[in-house]
Amino acid sequence: MADGRRRTDPAIAGARCWQGAERCSGELFALTYGALVRQILRDREDDVDATNAALERVGRSMGTRIVEEYLSRTGAGARACRSFEDACEAVAKTALKMFLGVDARTRDWSEDVDECVIEMDTNPLAEFVELPKRYEGLCYCNALCGAIRGALEAVRVRTTCAFESDPLAGNGDKFAIRIKLVEIVPEEYPFDD
Amino acid sequence: MADGRRRTDPAIAGARCWQGAERCSGELFALTYGALVRQILRDREDDVDATNAALERVGRSMGTRIVEEYLSRTGAGARACRSFEDACEAVAKTALKMFLGVDARTRDWSEDVDECVIEMDTNPLAEFVELPKRYEGLCYCNALCGAIRGALEAVRVRTTCAFESDPLAGNGDKFAIRIKLVEIVPEEYPFDD
Repeated sequence: MADGRRRTDPAIAGARCWQGAERCSGELFALTYGALVRQILRDREDDVDATNAALERVGRSMGTRIVEEYLSRTGAGARACRSFEDACEAVAKTALKMFLGVDARTRDWSEDVDECVIEMDTNPLAEFVELPKRYEGLCYCNALCGAIRGALEAVRVRTTCAFESDPLAGNGDKFAIRIKLVEIVPEEYPFDD
Repeated sequence: MADGRRRTDPAIAGARCWQGAERCSGELFALTYGALVRQILRDREDDVDATNAALERVGRSMGTRIVEEYLSRTGAGARACRSFEDACEAVAKTALKMFLGVDARTRDWSEDVDECVIEMDTNPLAEFVELPKRYEGLCYCNALCGAIRGALEAVRVRTTCAFESDPLAGNGDKFAIRIKLVEIVPEEYPFDD
């Protein structure tokens, strides 16, 4: 942590990037995401588990692409993700602010610092959404978990990521994501022999 | 037009609403819209015409919902859409700015003032997009036409709406939408007898 203080505060970096970014209306975004979820449900014939998995994949591919924007705009480079802790702080304080305008924080760190919960104050994906009974078990915002996983994987931090509390599913009153470290993939230098 | 000047300038209204709105990153929006298009293509087994139609429908349902936000935030009420001309100016100068951050204008008005072209300076839906050859004929941004139609229909202005030039399809260097008046549906007072 002491080391972390030498760098720009992640919350300040997030707010700064949020200020300068190209943006679109939150409502339009929410409606577009909703249309995507409906389309995937339809394509999967209302199979909720298959839809959850598809949303995760869609999110991962977004995360893989969006991380480049993140790295170039924050000027963070690989440094920001040296440790799992740094990576989680970057997601919570910088990335969620930068891309969704969400204020978030990490909590409930495990003793080994390999697991925590990212708690969000708001969730623009879920605005105006109410899930019909027949979609019980749908993890409507699963693309967000996918996007976090995809973005972190792109900087060699392999994780698992799932909602720990999800008000849309009637579970808790804040959106919170549990994120666990699987491994930090060592950098490979294929041409160093 | 003289009459129009008594009201707030639509461009100023658009910029003001754009300033105050909840927003998300333009890149994330573009990626989400792209995922929606891919999903619809998949669901329609790459049938481009069926996909164009589905995108239009998705857009219409968005437009129908988003017009409420538009009316409440601009304070325009029904007044703003008294005439087809007013409605087109509201779309070009206020709504496109407010929801997509796009600067746009109307041009090429027909003599009867029942048809014009809305030309956009940018198109956040189309950023980072290149269409593979096999999707020739795909109107990638057709949800936008649908949204305009849906929103105007909700205020009783029935139109047709289609891209006149679409750089993604290799047709022109600006996105421009031709919009034609079908009818202004008279207000009905079902309980006035």
